Amino acid sequence: MQAAIITIGDELLIGQTLNTNAAWIGQELSNQGIRIYRSITIRDERKDILDVVDDYMNEADLIIVTGGLGPTKDDITKETLCDYFETTLELNDRVLNRIKKYFEARGKEMLPSNIQQAELPKGAIILDNNHGTASGMWFEKGGKVLVSIPGVPYEMKAIMNEEVLPRSKAKFGVTGNYHQTLMTQGVGESFLADQIKDWEDRIYGDDLFLAYLPSPGIVKLRLTSKNGATDAKKIENYFHELREKLPKYAYGMNGETIFEVVGGLLRKRGKTLGTIESCTGGGIANAFIQKSGSSDFFQGGLVTYSNELKVKLASVESETLDTYGAVSEETVKEMALGGMKNLNVDYSIAVSGIAGPDGGTEEKPVGTVWIAVGCPEGGVIAKKFLFGEHRGRNLEKTQLYAANMLRKVLLKVE
Amino acid sequence: MQAAIITIGDELLIGQTLNTNAAWIGQELSNQGIRIYRSITIRDERKDILDVVDDYMNEADLIIVTGGLGPTKDDITKETLCDYFETTLELNDRVLNRIKKYFEARGKEMLPSNIQQAELPKGAIILDNNHGTASGMWFEKGGKVLVSIPGVPYEMKAIMNEEVLPRSKAKFGVTGNYHQTLMTQGVGESFLADQIKDWEDRIYGDDLFLAYLPSPGIVKLRLTSKNGATDAKKIENYFHELREKLPKYAYGMNGETIFEVVGGLLRKRGKTLGTIESCTGGGIANAFIQKSGSSDFFQGGLVTYSNELKVKLASVESETLDTYGAVSEETVKEMALGGMKNLNVDYSIAVSGIAGPDGGTEEKPVGTVWIAVGCPEGGVIAKKFLFGEHRGRNLEKTQLYAANMLRKVLLKVE
Repeated sequence: MQAAIITIGDELLIGQTLNTNAAWIGQELSNQGIRIYRSITIRDERKDILDVVDDYMNEADLIIVTGGLGPTKDDITKETLCDYFETTLELNDRVLNRIKKYFEARGKEMLPSNIQQAELPKGAIILDNNHGTASGMWFEKGGKVLVSIPGVPYEMKAIMNEEVLPRSKAKFGVTGNYHQTLMTQGVGESFLADQIKDWEDRIYGDDLFLAYLPSPGIVKLRLTSKNGATDAKKIENYFHELREKLPKYAYGMNGETIFEVVGGLLRKRGKTLGTIESCTGGGIANAFIQKSGSSDFFQGGLVTYSNELKVKLASVESETLDTYGAVSEETVKEMALGGMKNLNVDYSIAVSGIAGPDGGTEEKPVGTVWIAVGCPEGGVIAKKFLFGEHRGRNLEKTQLYAANMLRKVLLKVE
Repeated sequence: MQAAIITIGDELLIGQTLNTNAAWIGQELSNQGIRIYRSITIRDERKDILDVVDDYMNEADLIIVTGGLGPTKDDITKETLCDYFETTLELNDRVLNRIKKYFEARGKEMLPSNIQQAELPKGAIILDNNHGTASGMWFEKGGKVLVSIPGVPYEMKAIMNEEVLPRSKAKFGVTGNYHQTLMTQGVGESFLADQIKDWEDRIYGDDLFLAYLPSPGIVKLRLTSKNGATDAKKIENYFHELREKLPKYAYGMNGETIFEVVGGLLRKRGKTLGTIESCTGGGIANAFIQKSGSSDFFQGGLVTYSNELKVKLASVESETLDTYGAVSEETVKEMALGGMKNLNVDYSIAVSGIAGPDGGTEEKPVGTVWIAVGCPEGGVIAKKFLFGEHRGRNLEKTQLYAANMLRKVLLKVE
């Protein structure tokens, strides 16, 4: 049993769009225990689509095709697949109604090209798209399955989760891999590997497989068993051991963000949070509100990008700024305390740093960031970080390290 | 003249690593005017490598292969390519010396497997790797070129920039494709297609090709010419026409963000901006500071997530909140004006909405968002939007529509 992934679109070939769809589909299929044979990106051209589909229908059992299902002229996937599977289009009333409602709900007019999107291949199973106007299609031929879905990532993911993955599981009935992922923040991949060397040797002896998945500020550790969920308890125990060993870094499981974890701790304790941000310009506040229900603990924040606003909104003394500068322990502590008072919250996070690429000095190079956490009863701690030269990564890391600093305060982890 | 990209590695197929190499190479080749035929990811398996290389040597003139050149047993690309090109390995003294120095500089011991990395195919041009131990290889056969380079992104990029791109330019000297992209905000793909129908018909008649690249809130229009940069002026003229026709939507070119464009307008006029955000929780501020130098115009912002802070920080009247609610024209206008005053800025953006998935009512369903723009001399305009049900997309769209609203104010576009 193996699968192939075909992603259609010039924007992928010329690198205008990063092919996150292929990665996501690869991950989901491999989680189901399905082996990936090949993943190919091709042009929006009839001949290319026909050639590759024909090729892969011989080699793979399941083929996932994304892209080329939009309402415009350059979208040719549906017609091309109709020809390949020797069928024709017919108007699907159920889908037409759904598309009508989609436009009604948005108070927008439906166009003829959208009506055409309700014309779908006879004989194919139609996969509902509740997030857009292009339906997915499930074709079968000689025991093989080809699925065509839109390339818009959230539409693709919804159809995969709601339709394709359950159906492929039912059809191909693979045991599948089982995995859990431990989330860590604030530790590099090599240092982490060194710290857990003995543990890692034991897990290999126990027929599990470990993968390190690093991204800026975060390393995920994925433990996989090829024996399916029967190994769930074993994996849970191994991770429990690691969380006890690495409380500074190991903050959660399976894709939880550190902001969700910190938000959960604050909610449980009935405490409130406010943010006072300079370099990150609202990024920390924004990270906390990504999950709904964050108003339970998150009250608001101050984006004090200019020094004038640090004084005006966060009650930083002008003298402190003059003497120590905006990126200093003294300033960031005053931001945390002044902001905490002005926002009327129990805890505060304040950050000030040089995100770059300009603005660095010998004493304070690009990547220098001060983070402070203000606590009830006026306590405040601050720490200096030296990240790197890349603005985007500096901003992202500041957000993650700041949240982890509050987590460690809340859990009294040194 | 067309090229193919072959990326080797299971970690890519199962989505553990995002295939940024394929995107980067696609971008660089297409910038050289080389058309990309296909981009494929395959397993670290001899048969797969041989099959795909043989296939693509027939179809493409230039093939870039990445991965499988490391020192460990699972790295089989070099040996497999030797077999394909019917040659053998020989020790390359120059490369051996480079590898020796590489280890000396890092105070590390050289292993036998690293010496093997200096064994390279007879007849291939060896491409120096100054950042690692695996050399690149340039094979030629029947006028076609196959290049094999390491998969580590910074090694790959260095060899591409220093060796492969100059050599391919010299060898193929192509005209190639040429493209430009127009960025639009605030218009759906179908509606846009309908609006530019006549224009689109003309561009096809003029031997250009149009692609629609939609993402939440944004549709990019890419015009491609197969005749290379000779058509640059033609494409420019077509886009100029479209920008004149669609000033509400067409905001920039070639990947510019709307925040960069608005920031540029403010900078040019010496005007300042502040944000007052409820539902987006700092996301608008954060979008404006992604580009360095934003402190030229961006002063700061208020994240007034709670009603208490709307009153306290943005001087919204409690009575307004009680009478009209937080998500209302009245509240968002007061936020814009009060915040503008308290932040001491020339322009303000204020947003308040129901991001979801909870909190919707019949009168104000999830996705209802009010956006206001405050202007010098106390002017303020506000507009209501009805986005969708998905929290993340509602937040993202609010940010984009808010920035475009300010852009239209600045440019006096109705």
